[in-house]
Amino acid sequence: MKTYRDIFKWGDKREEMLDDGMLNLLISKFNLSNDELENVHLLGNEELNFEHDLIISESVIQQFKNICGDENVYSTKEERASHTYGKHFLELLKLRLGIIDNPLDLVIYPSNSDQIIEIVKICNNNKIPIVPFGGGSSVTMALQATFGGVCLDLSKHFNKVIKINESNCSVTVETGILGPDLEKVLNKQGFTCGHFPQSFEYSTVGGWIAARGAGTLSTGYGKIEEMVLALNVVTPSGIIETKDYPADAQAINLNNIFIGSEGIFGVITEACLKIRKYYPEKTAFASFIFKSFEQAVESMRETMQAGYGKPHLFRISDPDETDIAFKMKGFENTFSDKILKVLGYKPGQRTLMFAAIEGSNKYPEFVKKCLKKTAKKHKGLYIGQKPVKKWLEQRYSSAYARDPIMDKGIITDTFETSVTWEDLLSLWNSARIYLNSRPLIVAMVHISHVYENGANLYFTFLSPWKKGLEVEDYQNFHKGLVDVIVKNKGSLSHHHGIGRILSPWMKEQYGENGISLLQALKQHFDPENIMNPGGMLGLR
Amino acid sequence: MKTYRDIFKWGDKREEMLDDGMLNLLISKFNLSNDELENVHLLGNEELNFEHDLIISESVIQQFKNICGDENVYSTKEERASHTYGKHFLELLKLRLGIIDNPLDLVIYPSNSDQIIEIVKICNNNKIPIVPFGGGSSVTMALQATFGGVCLDLSKHFNKVIKINESNCSVTVETGILGPDLEKVLNKQGFTCGHFPQSFEYSTVGGWIAARGAGTLSTGYGKIEEMVLALNVVTPSGIIETKDYPADAQAINLNNIFIGSEGIFGVITEACLKIRKYYPEKTAFASFIFKSFEQAVESMRETMQAGYGKPHLFRISDPDETDIAFKMKGFENTFSDKILKVLGYKPGQRTLMFAAIEGSNKYPEFVKKCLKKTAKKHKGLYIGQKPVKKWLEQRYSSAYARDPIMDKGIITDTFETSVTWEDLLSLWNSARIYLNSRPLIVAMVHISHVYENGANLYFTFLSPWKKGLEVEDYQNFHKGLVDVIVKNKGSLSHHHGIGRILSPWMKEQYGENGISLLQALKQHFDPENIMNPGGMLGLR
Repeated sequence: MKTYRDIFKWGDKREEMLDDGMLNLLISKFNLSNDELENVHLLGNEELNFEHDLIISESVIQQFKNICGDENVYSTKEERASHTYGKHFLELLKLRLGIIDNPLDLVIYPSNSDQIIEIVKICNNNKIPIVPFGGGSSVTMALQATFGGVCLDLSKHFNKVIKINESNCSVTVETGILGPDLEKVLNKQGFTCGHFPQSFEYSTVGGWIAARGAGTLSTGYGKIEEMVLALNVVTPSGIIETKDYPADAQAINLNNIFIGSEGIFGVITEACLKIRKYYPEKTAFASFIFKSFEQAVESMRETMQAGYGKPHLFRISDPDETDIAFKMKGFENTFSDKILKVLGYKPGQRTLMFAAIEGSNKYPEFVKKCLKKTAKKHKGLYIGQKPVKKWLEQRYSSAYARDPIMDKGIITDTFETSVTWEDLLSLWNSARIYLNSRPLIVAMVHISHVYENGANLYFTFLSPWKKGLEVEDYQNFHKGLVDVIVKNKGSLSHHHGIGRILSPWMKEQYGENGISLLQALKQHFDPENIMNPGGMLGLR
Repeated sequence: MKTYRDIFKWGDKREEMLDDGMLNLLISKFNLSNDELENVHLLGNEELNFEHDLIISESVIQQFKNICGDENVYSTKEERASHTYGKHFLELLKLRLGIIDNPLDLVIYPSNSDQIIEIVKICNNNKIPIVPFGGGSSVTMALQATFGGVCLDLSKHFNKVIKINESNCSVTVETGILGPDLEKVLNKQGFTCGHFPQSFEYSTVGGWIAARGAGTLSTGYGKIEEMVLALNVVTPSGIIETKDYPADAQAINLNNIFIGSEGIFGVITEACLKIRKYYPEKTAFASFIFKSFEQAVESMRETMQAGYGKPHLFRISDPDETDIAFKMKGFENTFSDKILKVLGYKPGQRTLMFAAIEGSNKYPEFVKKCLKKTAKKHKGLYIGQKPVKKWLEQRYSSAYARDPIMDKGIITDTFETSVTWEDLLSLWNSARIYLNSRPLIVAMVHISHVYENGANLYFTFLSPWKKGLEVEDYQNFHKGLVDVIVKNKGSLSHHHGIGRILSPWMKEQYGENGISLLQALKQHFDPENIMNPGGMLGLR
């Protein structure tokens, strides 16, 4: 029998290790005693144990089995538990606490669109909730089952590349395909998808679209909404199929009705995405250090607005994140570090900037040269290719530190927002003050998706939870942070989406008339309210 | 008293002249005799003369006057006639024929959002149609009054720049502002709007957004949907205000519900648009000639997919358009022309390509160098900066030849579509065969908006109309062209929009479920069906 721990773990071998850098950081910042390090709790080693009657009748289950085959319809505790929650901190915490509030009834693994169409029809006729499910890596509670029902997991059998069109530079896929599987097929033919969210290894094309995601190269290649050419969406009211025009003026763009819809209108089944020529050997890398966050931000803004091309990866770590990176990478107090300090690049102020530019001919080198010129103007010191290359190598792995950190009784969470340049520094300042007001906290902030008109801010924080009050402690702290961000003109999300965790703020942010519009769309596509129902996106 | 001719003329001084090049072309292609050249007809010199009772009561008119002032509410024949039609060929033809089917009742010139809100309320309560009106340059019958009612002309008093935000590179405007007025203000502060449709001088920001327009620099700066950061829209059901986040993941992007909505949901009152740094002195210009259309297209595609940056202006004239340009510019049979022929660039096959690259540092020159390299690979010959510079100088003026050409009894019309690279040549071929099947025709085709995944095709055609059967002749020929384009996988429009002229094809192109979605949105925003009603976008 499986345990709760089996459910919440990534199952990735990298997650077992908490490297010395991280361990020492936690020990020193949180004054962890040996006792605290050893006496871990909430490991979730208990066997899965929840009682919930199935709301779906046997005869309906039989219909699903007739459509997808017996071997693709599950009502086992393990399957139900592993699809009921996503990867938000509170969801992981609940699993550690042995709580599964509203377990799904069934997990179905369809293998083609026709099956999905049939399943949606049956669910609609029987008013059975459906949660579309890809990699399950949502960090917004977007796929948390609220009223039980069916989980439609597309990642197992509905994950094929349908067509690569070399002439059009596009790929059509079944949306359950995982990032690495797509990328491997594309690379073989000399292309890249250009979309590399941190969840890349455990997320699907359908999830990227539903959550309006962004990858680490989004500054160059755009968010997912700039990559989608066409979609097929199966809604309870019918199927929407759009065409892969490079652009058009045929009334409103229907793709945008579903990008960011988080499963509330229908199941996104096929997507035609832009792809790009793949020249990894030509990529230019550049790392800089600035004397202050403000100067780094100003340099970044100037680059984005200058009109000389732009990096694909473009990041700034704020001073605290920079110091932590230096500490963890063993750079602190090296000879180079001492030189930096003498040159005026001081801990607590200095700020790392990373850039990588893709492309052909000498474009990457050309943009890098311009970048260096702009950075220099803002007293940014070029520190070579290596730091950004190192960063890229481990870009997915920090997610896998999550569980070992939680094993020490520590909250680990992220929050991300977008903001115009005008308001970026004040938002950063206010959020920093708020974060640092918590007595024991390690908070890191970076900018990682950059535009002509502003950028995102990405917050990562670690803090020991209050034993016995884990949920309330987190909820209070999280609420305070979101309030500060909204008050300082940040969006509720830049690329994680809203889900259920941020939906209480939607009316204020999206406007009452925006919400009624969502409701009207919901009513149109899903009059029985079966698609991912319950508190999503600020809807009832 | 005004004549019909007063109504349909642009009123631009450039329109009086039909240059020798054009005149000779028409004479030679259509075998026009002196008699035909002199005996012009349908000049529309008759006095405006139409009888239609106002459907709006005096008391309601008085309410409008109370809101906007007596001097901003008109029911004169002249005002009604000049706002009832846009600039589509059939609309101009009808004015020449002295036909105004369904004249508007009133033209109102509001000066602020509050007035617009009040007017929309009154119209909604009294079920009075509203047509939002900017520059009036629609070529799709999108603003043609169908049931009379009120024209809300924003261009007179609702046309101010509200704010230029230099830090964010954005501008907020009242949507009635005309292109040149916006550009002048921006240039003064070192910025450009980057959006230059051919209608630039007679179109407004509101119109650009409502029709999902594109400007000549769209290959670099994007279509209008890529420029809009935030909108205010006044709908009968309430006001939608979006925020100017550089990007976000807050459910679906509400801006996209209104971009391309062509006035059927509400009045777009304010827009926050991206703006760009303005370095006109740095722009690089490049003109090429290719041996065939196919090679030019292949070179263009390679450039767009190569990842070395891209031009802002990027155009190909097909062989017929190239020959006509050479003829009209007096290049034919010059010494240079003879050399070109010897080199294998032959009339009937050779193809012009124009590019202009904007930006700072050496970006324009860098991209130009790459462009040249790619062109050379496809046997494209670089022919200097001058041809594209010349073209840019007169880029708006060909529109003003429209009326003098129609004075000779000649249909002048355009059609534009978008298509993936894969289908571009077959679409071009089929459309060419169709166009050339008309006995007397001058047809020019170009590509002018280019993407990684495809491009637009823009058709311009001139042909003597059948006297006495002008409307039917045009309608038959136009229908045949649209059918060919749709059959060959072109969109109904790349940037003109759908309006009433293309709405009969919408169900096929947009899908029945797409149309029901539009209807659901319409029902939500405008339950009384007052916003630009009557055959718009395929709706009833």
